[in-house]
Amino acid sequence: MDIKAYLKQQAEFINKKIQEYIPLGTPEKLFEAMAYSLNAGGKRLRPVLILESAKAAGKEDINDIADIAVAAEFVHTYSLIHDDLPAMDDDDLRRGKPTCHKVFGEAIAILAGDGLQSYAFELISQNKSVPPEKLVKVINLLAHGTGIYGMVGGQAADILHEKENAFDDIQFIHTHKTAKFIQSCCQIGAVLADATAKEEEALKNYGLYIGLAFQIWDDVLDEIGDEKKLGKKTRKDREKNKLTYPALYGIEKSKKIAKDYIEKAIEEIKILKSPEILQEIAKYIISREV
Amino acid sequence: MDIKAYLKQQAEFINKKIQEYIPLGTPEKLFEAMAYSLNAGGKRLRPVLILESAKAAGKEDINDIADIAVAAEFVHTYSLIHDDLPAMDDDDLRRGKPTCHKVFGEAIAILAGDGLQSYAFELISQNKSVPPEKLVKVINLLAHGTGIYGMVGGQAADILHEKENAFDDIQFIHTHKTAKFIQSCCQIGAVLADATAKEEEALKNYGLYIGLAFQIWDDVLDEIGDEKKLGKKTRKDREKNKLTYPALYGIEKSKKIAKDYIEKAIEEIKILKSPEILQEIAKYIISREV
Repeated sequence: MDIKAYLKQQAEFINKKIQEYIPLGTPEKLFEAMAYSLNAGGKRLRPVLILESAKAAGKEDINDIADIAVAAEFVHTYSLIHDDLPAMDDDDLRRGKPTCHKVFGEAIAILAGDGLQSYAFELISQNKSVPPEKLVKVINLLAHGTGIYGMVGGQAADILHEKENAFDDIQFIHTHKTAKFIQSCCQIGAVLADATAKEEEALKNYGLYIGLAFQIWDDVLDEIGDEKKLGKKTRKDREKNKLTYPALYGIEKSKKIAKDYIEKAIEEIKILKSPEILQEIAKYIISREV
Repeated sequence: MDIKAYLKQQAEFINKKIQEYIPLGTPEKLFEAMAYSLNAGGKRLRPVLILESAKAAGKEDINDIADIAVAAEFVHTYSLIHDDLPAMDDDDLRRGKPTCHKVFGEAIAILAGDGLQSYAFELISQNKSVPPEKLVKVINLLAHGTGIYGMVGGQAADILHEKENAFDDIQFIHTHKTAKFIQSCCQIGAVLADATAKEEEALKNYGLYIGLAFQIWDDVLDEIGDEKKLGKKTRKDREKNKLTYPALYGIEKSKKIAKDYIEKAIEEIKILKSPEILQEIAKYIISREV
């Protein structure tokens, strides 16, 4: 199968669903800022993983959980807006477009991020098809994977570098900043598909492994990638003296570590009803040029 | 009854519960930043209103919902941290202590705020005593009251001033920035007490009215309050040329409007099983000197 074409088509489905669930209201500039960042494009990997994990575990109709997938993208978008702020990564461009605070100012960018986070939980809590006990579990997984024990904790670690040695430090950062959110998306898919405990565990491990590989591959692309294809500046990590896999292990060993994670991910989900697409996604993660 | 003493005792109960639910973990500085702001004191009005609304609607044991009350304070604290940021209100002091970003830096303050918000939802989703369908409703009320259709929207409006005339503008700001969160706390109490639709509606209206009165009274205190008692600079609104009730209506008329809201609030909840404490709280709001 042409996984690249398939993922593009799935991203388009998510884009359509984002339009359906995008919040409208006043003050206009706040809602414009949120829409601006939500519509800035991207692979929509996290919502796609929620839906594909659910399908892999046997869920046939995913229309009643599309709002939950969209909510995950809202959280991802909030994290990008806050990440780009002058006090954080101080980025002027994202995917070739001016960042949210460059267009709307810092105060509105902070609030747009805050609002996208709360609206993600508001959206999930409004779903009428999924039983409440599952919604509570989904909310728990999303909050946990993206909060202080997940993404937010990882972002803070990436700023603070509290660990004694660089290897522990980067492992903590990659696991928390990137992998835990991706992991929670795969687990959310499992919960929504009524997966067995064994299936959920497999998807949880799959999510962790592809999440780690994803971040290593991002670091590698920053080092060797084509600026035009990526649509963003490369060698940024090096300029900022960031702790990365290539810096610690070199390019070739980094690639090898990512490849090993992907193999483990593929192995993990063999027990699922239809693991093929998730397995292709895993392979795609370490073949992508953007 | 001595409502001031009673509220102090309730705030102490909330303080104890905050210690119980305060998150621990690494990176240390992130968790320290959250704890620093959570322990900065305050009236704990929002969690107290959740518990007192539940009691007023007939709930006897509030120990199994204390985590939900604490979660509301987590959201309130996140909003204060982000509010104080240089790009927002740019405040160096809160309750006489240096603000979060002054102590921990802007990046960690942004993340501490983000993390407190997600952890609030994580905490609620972990409650094992309240049935899931109620937890989903609580999450919806909290996200709605503090998100883009509530507090965050009001904060943005306070920066943008998009409305055509000052009276509409201030009404929108007060309703969204302050009243909707307070309203959602009262409604959360109703939901947790299994209140009837009529009781919930009464608490919803009560919350709106006391929320509006609370913000007007804050504006009045900023104009006429004692700096030492308040523990913060007064005349700040005027310095910043902020749109306030005293600026628009004068002190006496502002007080009168607040008083009218309080009377309506007291009237609204007469139908509850035990409205007395909430009625005393309403009166206290426009008598307080801090």
